[in-house]
Amino acid sequence: MTSYTATVTVRLKRGVLDPEAETTQRALERLGFELEALRSADQFEVDLDADSADAAAERADEMAERLLANPTIHDYDVEVREAE
Amino acid sequence: MTSYTATVTVRLKRGVLDPEAETTQRALERLGFELEALRSADQFEVDLDADSADAAAERADEMAERLLANPTIHDYDVEVREAE
Repeated sequence: MTSYTATVTVRLKRGVLDPEAETTQRALERLGFELEALRSADQFEVDLDADSADAAAERADEMAERLLANPTIHDYDVEVREAE
Repeated sequence: MTSYTATVTVRLKRGVLDPEAETTQRALERLGFELEALRSADQFEVDLDADSADAAAERADEMAERLLANPTIHDYDVEVREAE
């Protein structure tokens, strides 16, 4: 067993309204920043033991499917690296 | 001017309590997943025009300092890539 860290990034699908991001963008503009767009995402870093990076990615993928992401409104991606 | 996307990842500093992450970890364990730890982070993808990648990174860094992160409880990092 090796220790891995899986990073699951959960984003809203294109077309789903994101009032938090809109508010953040407006607040930045009010501070004088120029920006074209802003999107927000949730990131989960999961430390887990697995036999291989592929096995760790598969488990993190299942976590995203079952709990971390809502497939109706979210896309997600999973990246795995060996833990330091 | 070139279009860049700056990704600002805002994490809680080590030692700051993260009840959302604890709840998520417990919910995953209740679903039968084995994991050692879970940390959550907020990610902002900012599209902006700048003269260089360095200039874009500097601007995103200032956005983090002034609004996106709270230096008392957060660490953050900035990654910049040319927009597709």
